[in-house]
Amino acid sequence: MKLTVINTGGTFNKVYNPISGELDVPTHNLALQKILDVTYNLDIELITLLSKDSLDITENDRQTLVQCIQNCSNENIVIIHGTDTMHLSAECIAQHIGNKKIILTGAMIPMSIDETEATMNFSLALGFLNAPIQNGIYIAMHGAVVSYKNIAKNKEQGKFLVQ
Amino acid sequence: MKLTVINTGGTFNKVYNPISGELDVPTHNLALQKILDVTYNLDIELITLLSKDSLDITENDRQTLVQCIQNCSNENIVIIHGTDTMHLSAECIAQHIGNKKIILTGAMIPMSIDETEATMNFSLALGFLNAPIQNGIYIAMHGAVVSYKNIAKNKEQGKFLVQ
Amino acid sequence: MKLTVINTGGTFNKVYNPISGELDVPTHNLALQKILDVTYNLDIELITLLSKDSLDITENDRQTLVQCIQNCSNENIVIIHGTDTMHLSAECIAQHIGNKKIILTGAMIPMSIDETEATMNFSLALGFLNAPIQNGIYIAMHGAVVSYKNIAKNKEQGKFLVQ
Amino acid sequence: MKLTVINTGGTFNKVYNPISGELDVPTHNLALQKILDVTYNLDIELITLLSKDSLDITENDRQTLVQCIQNCSNENIVIIHGTDTMHLSAECIAQHIGNKKIILTGAMIPMSIDETEATMNFSLALGFLNAPIQNGIYIAMHGAVVSYKNIAKNKEQGKFLVQ
Repeated sequence: MKLTVINTGGTFNKVYNPISGELDVPTHNLALQKILDVTYNLDIELITLLSKDSLDITENDRQTLVQCIQNCSNENIVIIHGTDTMHLSAECIAQHIGNKKIILTGAMIPMSIDETEATMNFSLALGFLNAPIQNGIYIAMHGAVVSYKNIAKNKEQGKFLVQ
Repeated sequence: MKLTVINTGGTFNKVYNPISGELDVPTHNLALQKILDVTYNLDIELITLLSKDSLDITENDRQTLVQCIQNCSNENIVIIHGTDTMHLSAECIAQHIGNKKIILTGAMIPMSIDETEATMNFSLALGFLNAPIQNGIYIAMHGAVVSYKNIAKNKEQGKFLVQ
Repeated sequence: MKLTVINTGGTFNKVYNPISGELDVPTHNLALQKILDVTYNLDIELITLLSKDSLDITENDRQTLVQCIQNCSNENIVIIHGTDTMHLSAECIAQHIGNKKIILTGAMIPMSIDETEATMNFSLALGFLNAPIQNGIYIAMHGAVVSYKNIAKNKEQGKFLVQ
Repeated sequence: MKLTVINTGGTFNKVYNPISGELDVPTHNLALQKILDVTYNLDIELITLLSKDSLDITENDRQTLVQCIQNCSNENIVIIHGTDTMHLSAECIAQHIGNKKIILTGAMIPMSIDETEATMNFSLALGFLNAPIQNGIYIAMHGAVVSYKNIAKNKEQGKFLVQ
């Protein structure tokens, strides 16, 4: 299967900075790469579009993301995105693109701190794309892969829950 | 989504035994449980059927597995299985069961040694089950979820590859 | 060997909070306990005195720490402490206590994110206490165990360096 | 402090081989290097002498080890060694060398599986060498650093215990 993965940053990628004591969004793809290294049956194009906490993603950034998707030759697309504004980006993409299978995913816990949740969320998207699904904009988080309209982040619980 | 997970053992579950210096298949589900803990949108029934290296799985064990599946009220089933005889079990299940969505998965690297591959393989199955798939016997490994007939383990490379 | 370990908090103990996205100093001793679990030859008394980032440690806290040490029946004491004010606490202890072997240690990287540095720093202290050392106030960090007067944190590099 | 680290192999270094499903002693020093990377205050010479399970270490290998130590310009020496024959090597070294501070260490759990025990054992040795100790042959394991004559491996418990 051919697939484009677009990395926009977010908690999924964050790494601890021992100097500042903070978690930074790095410009590298080490978190993602560790997963991709064992996907022997996929032909993946990896695009590092942004390296931002999703609270810092602007409307301009979303236009850039839409253009990036429009320029993709692959119809299967997974987007790594911060969780706080994942829905805003999903809505923006939905307004412009209807002819692809696009799945947004991310993590509440950085891959560099604990690999389970980030790996699961991303791999849910890969598993879903292996099936005969319809074009659309989906979110893959916490065991579910559904239309972005049918899932929401519960900020108090730190969970994405199907509505 | 309702789902039954049947654990039969295999490398996925193995843990290091400091006394013997060997990797044992434990009777507990700690590896699996760590993943299930972040699948907030799934209603999972977990059955620990066997705790065996797959080279030790007998025809009797396979009959037990078939009966276990037949007794499941859920139609979505994921089976954790050792990689060496995953195909034999898949074939045995295919001979007896046609009315469920059954995905076998496992790992080349124990979850307790590195979480990425085991989590990915299992989560591929979860993602695939989120899609409108047909009844059948599938294998989810290394980025692919396909009919068990269309994927094989390459023992020299330690990879499951789509044929 | 008998030994008292006093946990005052600091980066050594920090754990990621998925709800806030921040690293918190927990009130538990899980980081420390993971190391203590394999120190089969030590008779350790563990005291959780404070759970603070060291920038938040007050003069009152330091007096509490001094009293805690004075009340210890053990002469071997290891203190887990944040790195930013480790020296202030060392100086305060030095002004009041001269009849014990006291080693302050901590970490630049939380044990929960990467176990190597935290485990090394703490174990340096344990190794040093196994030797026939003189009473004094020492700091164990980054390969060195020396009088607190002879080592300093280089904030730009994130390293404790012997002066 | 100047220090020579001699790696002879053993469980400390073992890594999982996904093809064979076994734990191999690698010829690289990745386990050790991860610890050395945060010992900013040490001037370390690293010698990879052997890469063997300690049950496979021969008398010839021990003579090679003795010669390696005799050729060291540093008087502080830490030896990474498998746990099963650590005592045989310690005795052999004691028969030939009296003018150095030599500490044997290792691990019951590979660094690549869990970093805590291996890092602790090695760092005990580093901490001990920071103190004004006498020349001798020591073993650093499980919280203790004592003469090799005063500690023994309890094979049933998987622990080194001071006698």
